[in-house]
Amino acid sequence: MYKRRSFLAATAVALSVLLSGCGEEKQEASAQAQPAAQEKISWKMVTTWPKNFPGLGTGANNLAELITEMSDGRLDVKVYGAGELVGALDVFDAVSRGTAEMGHGAGYYWKGKAPAGQFFAAVPFGLTAQEMNGWIYNGGGLELWAEAYEPFGIIPMPAGNTGVQMGGWFNKEINTIGDLEGLKMRIPGLGGEVLKRAGGTPVLLPGGEIFPSLQSGAIDATEWVGPYNDLAFGLHKAAKYYYYPGWHEPGTTLEALINKEAFNKLPKDLQAIVLAATRVANADMLAEFTARNNAALESLIGEHKVELRPYPAEVLSELQVLADQVVAEQAEVDEVSKKVYNSYKSFRDQAIDWHAISEQAMLNARNPQ
Amino acid sequence: MYKRRSFLAATAVALSVLLSGCGEEKQEASAQAQPAAQEKISWKMVTTWPKNFPGLGTGANNLAELITEMSDGRLDVKVYGAGELVGALDVFDAVSRGTAEMGHGAGYYWKGKAPAGQFFAAVPFGLTAQEMNGWIYNGGGLELWAEAYEPFGIIPMPAGNTGVQMGGWFNKEINTIGDLEGLKMRIPGLGGEVLKRAGGTPVLLPGGEIFPSLQSGAIDATEWVGPYNDLAFGLHKAAKYYYYPGWHEPGTTLEALINKEAFNKLPKDLQAIVLAATRVANADMLAEFTARNNAALESLIGEHKVELRPYPAEVLSELQVLADQVVAEQAEVDEVSKKVYNSYKSFRDQAIDWHAISEQAMLNARNPQ
Repeated sequence: MYKRRSFLAATAVALSVLLSGCGEEKQEASAQAQPAAQEKISWKMVTTWPKNFPGLGTGANNLAELITEMSDGRLDVKVYGAGELVGALDVFDAVSRGTAEMGHGAGYYWKGKAPAGQFFAAVPFGLTAQEMNGWIYNGGGLELWAEAYEPFGIIPMPAGNTGVQMGGWFNKEINTIGDLEGLKMRIPGLGGEVLKRAGGTPVLLPGGEIFPSLQSGAIDATEWVGPYNDLAFGLHKAAKYYYYPGWHEPGTTLEALINKEAFNKLPKDLQAIVLAATRVANADMLAEFTARNNAALESLIGEHKVELRPYPAEVLSELQVLADQVVAEQAEVDEVSKKVYNSYKSFRDQAIDWHAISEQAMLNARNPQ
Repeated sequence: MYKRRSFLAATAVALSVLLSGCGEEKQEASAQAQPAAQEKISWKMVTTWPKNFPGLGTGANNLAELITEMSDGRLDVKVYGAGELVGALDVFDAVSRGTAEMGHGAGYYWKGKAPAGQFFAAVPFGLTAQEMNGWIYNGGGLELWAEAYEPFGIIPMPAGNTGVQMGGWFNKEINTIGDLEGLKMRIPGLGGEVLKRAGGTPVLLPGGEIFPSLQSGAIDATEWVGPYNDLAFGLHKAAKYYYYPGWHEPGTTLEALINKEAFNKLPKDLQAIVLAATRVANADMLAEFTARNNAALESLIGEHKVELRPYPAEVLSELQVLADQVVAEQAEVDEVSKKVYNSYKSFRDQAIDWHAISEQAMLNARNPQ
């Protein structure tokens, strides 16, 4: 699995030849001159994103580059886009069996294998980006996530966040929850399940097929990410109304998957570098999305005259009732999902109280509704 | 400035002795066995926080440990609490003159030297933590910050965030802005300037003096950080009302200060490690505060029966008018402050629009007011 590069191996050989026949003291010096940390290792990172896809794919690239840079090339990570080495949805399996030492994706893509992973990606009316980080890093989430992926030999780490997504693109107004009935909408995960309970039909489509499907009428509506990515796809050319907020994905967390066996073989400093790099990637993507969404929204409204619409408060309230049911049922799927749900639910209850008087109160004070 | 540790120096000496009298080939091997990246370097980090102070001081500790760990001890960073090597407010100067290679503090503490730094700490009714990161890392902020500290030979990096702080502890109700008149309140920075315009008297006190001053009546009111730190100081024992939100500090950013000359002498991988570690520290502190404030608020209300009060909307609106004046005047202080203000202002305008339909709309949908 590890490819040891030439420089230090050559140095070690050269030294042992040089020092052959010398006393014990000399042997010690030779051992000191070739510390284990100097081995060169090559890792593959498979991703669920098209190569270099803005925000998501470039976030995975940044993660790999940072590891290589911080380790001075001792751990070199090469990134593969979806389909290059394995398919977009085979990333979890590939890391599990060691085909690749790392992966970059999101927990709701492998819900058939590790259903508890969905709680660490996006939960309708769930945690925001800041709250996800609080829960995962400091609220017991990471330990449970590790437990959920343990049977697959995978160590999970948060490695990116889109922030609050947009509610989606529609060609009809959504004035009551009844307007969602019979609607064919591209919407993944637990959000799709909520739409189904409201009488709609959730459809799963990879990013690249969204625009043509919406334009041809194969689907009636779609959500994608937010202004930055939606503008890039030109979704405003195929739909009239842009609804907010993205109740179904309030702080979507992307994840790094690390093959446990490969990780355990790393020297301690490279282990620290890999874990720290995922933390940088996690925060960095949110900062990028925040800045770019800012600018893209201005362009969508100012130049492209997109019609922004809020979901009516009553529609959101009814969707939240359905979401609470869907999410609670998710807890019953298996033992670890139950533990994750309880931890998530208790953190969410506290976060709602604390953020009611901090983030929420502050945003409302700065920009009264 | 660099202290080269014994291990590799000893190895190099041992090898040169061993190999003395050998041919050129042997000399080359010796050179290869001691790559420059293996030098051991010791750095000092001075901080504005009492040693091990929860959240702030421990955040600085984590930053230092992460650098040491990722570099396998090649760059060893030792942390000094306020007063151990230099005083709390001398951190900026100490890093500037190279007494310490790193510092940890906040930009509003050295406004007398680099006034533009205040924009990168806390601005009343300004940017939240997520927005600060968007602006600094991806919106042009960091480049301007570097420009502001350049004359001092200092490289700045964000290295911690408290999130939205609380509005403060009072023994009287604040029903109109007139209730702030004549009030002696511990409140630093631009927030203090806003209080002054509302007829109050801002007082600057280090953390440790807040509780006794409030209890003795030397001050009428105080703000500090948020539930986690306020509970630790026992402020609820000396004041009746706990007001929110902390309009004066909506996402206070702590900073790492790096002596530029020392940084430039590092090999590239250690430079990458230092910068990445500040990014980890920046995100990590916010996650910690989010989780711990959650729990501390529950304790303050449930066990200590603290009376939570919202600032009335009209008071907030009037404070925001004063804040806008104070902040705009800050732009006139010097040339770089002007550039920083313009960049900040334009980012804030966009962020208010984008977060109105994302973070703000989502928090209000999840928890309707």
